[in-house]
Amino acid sequence: MAKQERAVRTRKALIESAAELFSRDGFELVSLSAISSRAGVSNGALHFHFPSKAALAAAVRDAAAQRFGRIVSAERPPPQLGGSLQALVDTSHALLRGLGHDVILRAGFDLADGAGGAGRGEDLYQRWHAWVEVAVARSAREGLLSDVAPRDLVATVVGATVGFAALGGHDVRWLSSSTLTRFWSLLLPRIASAPALRGLVAGGRRAEAS
Amino acid sequence: MAKQERAVRTRKALIESAAELFSRDGFELVSLSAISSRAGVSNGALHFHFPSKAALAAAVRDAAAQRFGRIVSAERPPPQLGGSLQALVDTSHALLRGLGHDVILRAGFDLADGAGGAGRGEDLYQRWHAWVEVAVARSAREGLLSDVAPRDLVATVVGATVGFAALGGHDVRWLSSSTLTRFWSLLLPRIASAPALRGLVAGGRRAEAS
Repeated sequence: MAKQERAVRTRKALIESAAELFSRDGFELVSLSAISSRAGVSNGALHFHFPSKAALAAAVRDAAAQRFGRIVSAERPPPQLGGSLQALVDTSHALLRGLGHDVILRAGFDLADGAGGAGRGEDLYQRWHAWVEVAVARSAREGLLSDVAPRDLVATVVGATVGFAALGGHDVRWLSSSTLTRFWSLLLPRIASAPALRGLVAGGRRAEAS
Repeated sequence: MAKQERAVRTRKALIESAAELFSRDGFELVSLSAISSRAGVSNGALHFHFPSKAALAAAVRDAAAQRFGRIVSAERPPPQLGGSLQALVDTSHALLRGLGHDVILRAGFDLADGAGGAGRGEDLYQRWHAWVEVAVARSAREGLLSDVAPRDLVATVVGATVGFAALGGHDVRWLSSSTLTRFWSLLLPRIASAPALRGLVAGGRRAEAS
């Protein structure tokens, strides 16, 4: 293995190990040596890549932000009945699925709780909130919404998805797609215009990339 | 002040101080001496009341459970249009209001995250979930619900309220009554039967006791 390739792998293993331990024990309690030992690398290698725990947390946050970005941009249904509203449903499913299986994404949301030197840029909660706002505004422009107030819909979708994610930390069933499908089954007949409703799938349509 | 009264006060101050610090810094990071010093009592007094930090966490959890119990039993609208469904709306408002101003209640929910020796009995999330289930079942029996599936409604209400609480840790506006009113304004026309809907108040009706 070339030296550079090995360095990339080591860096990746350290970020994964840090995410796992931050997520399990909390940023403050995790030691650098626990991170390096879990990644199977020396303390020296860790310090070569990351000067501090805060630097590792920043790397976890960046990796999580990239994954989040892939999730919200991956799902692009072709223009049709349901358009941006179906995209909102699909993306919420992809996000909760991601939080269920991707420890880096999960740690990225946890680190948004102020641990590890937050305050650098938007956190993932804010990005999710902003993304939902745009999706709802688009759905309104596309004539997919009934007479609901867009702000009410944004608050409800952000609240419920963040709640399912938080509850998933206690009991993974909250992250299952059936929970989110219940939510959308309840909501869609209220929020979708009559013609849009016929084309909507509460369980989401999986994109290739997720 | 009688000796016994002083002891009760000291115990209360220690629980309040512990709740404040657990909530701000997390259970693991808080030291017993920080708790006693914030409460304005000696380490000896702390140890007289609580043999360990876990014992303090248990006391915080018990105090939070009592407050939670008062919230869910306080709001009893007289039988009328809206009955148990209005009670659900009112109680969700009282809970979020409580989480906004009552650090012991907040710490009780935080400690449910597994810190400080969880696993002793139900946590507050589970109690809230169970309470919502009962309220929804009652609403169904009272003929207040439209044709929605009760389980969908339970998942949505628990998810959204827990989400607003979690988001409130980042930005207190999520705990404001206007956020929850948005949620209920969106939901009620979908979930309430036509006659019930006329009597329902999305903003909640405040009970004397809250």
